Amino acid sequence: MQHEINLNADMGESFGKYTIGNDAELMKVIRSANIACGFHAGDATVMTRTVRLALECGASIGAHPGFNDLWGFGRRQIAMNAQDLEYMITYQIGALQAIAAAQGTRVTHVKPHGALNNMAHHDFEIANAIARGIRAADRELIFVANACSEMVRAGHANELKVAEEAYVDRTYTDSGLMTPRTEANAVIKDAKVAARQVLSFIEEQAIVTASGKRLPSAIRSFCTHGDEPTAVALATLVRAELERQGVRVVPLTEMSF
Amino acid sequence: MQHEINLNADMGESFGKYTIGNDAELMKVIRSANIACGFHAGDATVMTRTVRLALECGASIGAHPGFNDLWGFGRRQIAMNAQDLEYMITYQIGALQAIAAAQGTRVTHVKPHGALNNMAHHDFEIANAIARGIRAADRELIFVANACSEMVRAGHANELKVAEEAYVDRTYTDSGLMTPRTEANAVIKDAKVAARQVLSFIEEQAIVTASGKRLPSAIRSFCTHGDEPTAVALATLVRAELERQGVRVVPLTEMSF
Amino acid sequence: MQHEINLNADMGESFGKYTIGNDAELMKVIRSANIACGFHAGDATVMTRTVRLALECGASIGAHPGFNDLWGFGRRQIAMNAQDLEYMITYQIGALQAIAAAQGTRVTHVKPHGALNNMAHHDFEIANAIARGIRAADRELIFVANACSEMVRAGHANELKVAEEAYVDRTYTDSGLMTPRTEANAVIKDAKVAARQVLSFIEEQAIVTASGKRLPSAIRSFCTHGDEPTAVALATLVRAELERQGVRVVPLTEMSF
Amino acid sequence: MQHEINLNADMGESFGKYTIGNDAELMKVIRSANIACGFHAGDATVMTRTVRLALECGASIGAHPGFNDLWGFGRRQIAMNAQDLEYMITYQIGALQAIAAAQGTRVTHVKPHGALNNMAHHDFEIANAIARGIRAADRELIFVANACSEMVRAGHANELKVAEEAYVDRTYTDSGLMTPRTEANAVIKDAKVAARQVLSFIEEQAIVTASGKRLPSAIRSFCTHGDEPTAVALATLVRAELERQGVRVVPLTEMSF
Repeated sequence: MQHEINLNADMGESFGKYTIGNDAELMKVIRSANIACGFHAGDATVMTRTVRLALECGASIGAHPGFNDLWGFGRRQIAMNAQDLEYMITYQIGALQAIAAAQGTRVTHVKPHGALNNMAHHDFEIANAIARGIRAADRELIFVANACSEMVRAGHANELKVAEEAYVDRTYTDSGLMTPRTEANAVIKDAKVAARQVLSFIEEQAIVTASGKRLPSAIRSFCTHGDEPTAVALATLVRAELERQGVRVVPLTEMSF
Repeated sequence: MQHEINLNADMGESFGKYTIGNDAELMKVIRSANIACGFHAGDATVMTRTVRLALECGASIGAHPGFNDLWGFGRRQIAMNAQDLEYMITYQIGALQAIAAAQGTRVTHVKPHGALNNMAHHDFEIANAIARGIRAADRELIFVANACSEMVRAGHANELKVAEEAYVDRTYTDSGLMTPRTEANAVIKDAKVAARQVLSFIEEQAIVTASGKRLPSAIRSFCTHGDEPTAVALATLVRAELERQGVRVVPLTEMSF
Repeated sequence: MQHEINLNADMGESFGKYTIGNDAELMKVIRSANIACGFHAGDATVMTRTVRLALECGASIGAHPGFNDLWGFGRRQIAMNAQDLEYMITYQIGALQAIAAAQGTRVTHVKPHGALNNMAHHDFEIANAIARGIRAADRELIFVANACSEMVRAGHANELKVAEEAYVDRTYTDSGLMTPRTEANAVIKDAKVAARQVLSFIEEQAIVTASGKRLPSAIRSFCTHGDEPTAVALATLVRAELERQGVRVVPLTEMSF
Repeated sequence: MQHEINLNADMGESFGKYTIGNDAELMKVIRSANIACGFHAGDATVMTRTVRLALECGASIGAHPGFNDLWGFGRRQIAMNAQDLEYMITYQIGALQAIAAAQGTRVTHVKPHGALNNMAHHDFEIANAIARGIRAADRELIFVANACSEMVRAGHANELKVAEEAYVDRTYTDSGLMTPRTEANAVIKDAKVAARQVLSFIEEQAIVTASGKRLPSAIRSFCTHGDEPTAVALATLVRAELERQGVRVVPLTEMSF
């Protein structure tokens, strides 16, 4: 049986006159774009430009909601009540939905950003608020959720389609988290090693940790970071290696849930 | 033939811990709510609460987009290029569309806020950017536009439904603008006089200015301001007087365009 | 020996068109004003107005820095690195210093706001960043710090003048925190009881907890909240009662450190 | 007699995770830095870093206040009443004053940013509000003001030291404005030509326009833009050429007013 995976990345995180990331190059490699929605980054013009770029490159379009913290780029943990959070998620998705509609396309997935994503990993109440906020906007949206996280549980509890994800170039600890960057083996720099890990996760239907432990998870999507200079090069090589081995790298919209 | 008008008001302009306006009372009187979308005022939680209140009171729901200027409450003129403005309008409408969907309802009209509305009155490029931003979000949206303004023209040029509006309690100059508040006769304080003016505008299909001049305009909707303490009382009396005279006061969604 | 205390309150937390609090009345009762600096609340115009009001009422002027979180009114805990925090504190104090100078007066104390204050209570690193930020702006500034908190320790470690404070109308638990509002005895509503507690804290040089435990603390200042409708009335009665008993209620600037 | 000029540039316009400009290189060439104050750009951390860089390079330190419009980078004209503007200017200067004090130095000049600067060029009320806001913060501050602008007049009217400025690499029209970039001769690309223009402005005590007209102005400072890739190279060459011709290029603090 032929394998099928998705590659996703965070996109559209520029703001006004400020530019960040390497969207034009990275968009060619990935198949699904997580587009910032104006809270931790992005604005209506950047969102429009990024939706167009995704369309040109055949990437499916997702919302990438974060805390309302432009200064902190959504990377500062903010304590927030679940109800407010739910509405804030729906707001951000809606903004992108309209901007996508303006370009003749649709938002088809949601991936939370930064500190919000990290908090939701362990905290069901936060994960559930996100899932409810997604469902309120459109119950057909695919929730891209860290493998082995409370988000997976919350997504299923809210009857959403869930695409469990892992990172292309990161190893994992036995608790299902990425190995901290302070550890020597945290980042995989060799495209063949990264491709091999991707394949093993798919075949095993599990995160296989650095120590060899198997954490069952139906992983569909692999995230690549755009904020490191070598990210695009590595992602390109990983994708090529996967395709060489017969893996189909597809948008989330071409997968069945 | 029985007359039919709409009453609208700006709503949902609180923000976080800050409260403004008297939405709970005013919502009972009007039939269509212009809900702030988080740029000049409002936030996802306030928007949700305001959509619910509109539903309870049977008011139809509109977006009330403004400049991204919370400090100035959207009342400062900001020079902005038309393209950015168009996308900013779509963004704000989209955010409210999703929040309305979450409450099982829909956004059916758009009314620009404050300085943006004032600038669009005279400036076709701005008016047109707004109209394009509306159309991009949903071409069925009703554009609530100052009578005799460039917004009316832009709305028609973009094949939108246009509801021309006047103010319930303001007199007009021969150039079709509200008489400035510095003038003695700017504000109508007597509900019967206000109701009479409303009726004359409907019957004449025109703004009838303070000097008696007739400025043709197919007025459908009358706006009442919530920011003055007497506004609710006056609007209540005007509505009662109109209904006493057989006028139907309806949501925009019950009018045909 | 005659006792001497200070009463302080948070002030100037309006923003743009948004008004909050009852500054005009509360300023007459207190002797030192903690003025918001434009991050969690306040703006340059509100700050100017509030400095003038403090001058008129003879209250000494303090900075009330908070997180850059207008939406959350500075009440959401935000994870922030200590270095950024230190600079953010200096920035906010500096802004108020210049606005005070413009009115011919000076900033003489600093009291952190909301979630920042709560986090600094227990966390020395945060408390120390605040103290360093204060010292950097002006080493003569008085640090108004919760009794029994890490802020007291950090203030002394940075050789600042420290005014330990308690709340006028709140009881305390044995861990030195205010009794949570969920408990029946959390809030003191009787001015005589509140005045008696104030006196006992001064005489005992300690927080005396609801259970009777004595937590040594050289308390100088008592905070009254402006956000409850009865706060001004209670503060007025407490002050009158204290003065009736011969206590001098003075600005922080009239105390020796 | 030996000539003496100042070179200034806008600095510290990064924000949070967003980086803009080439401060490290440009700071070596100029002698006075206009540091953004957190409204149109900059934040407390960036300001601190930029003050340190200026100290290292021997550049004098100025505030670069702008509209509260991060998205528009302070380049959008915003209608604002003069009183609010005055306080906003004082606020921004004060924030930088404290951050400079924290680094053991002082703010010695002020240069308005972007759209605010453009509006103040022609509008005395705006220019005067800026001058009053500067004077309120510190009456010793040097107001760096476009040659031949209302800012020069407002600076003198408020008894401030005024450093009239022109641009290093721009030609001027007979109305005293920079030749619009749409014109072929707007930008001077040859360092020798730029140096020659600088010298002629100093010797003539005037702007000498592209057509040869002489607009009297006691120019002291020349601004170089950091936002174009070639700016640093050109500024370096111009400074070298000026020094070769015996001109002293000094911080504003070494000039007498």
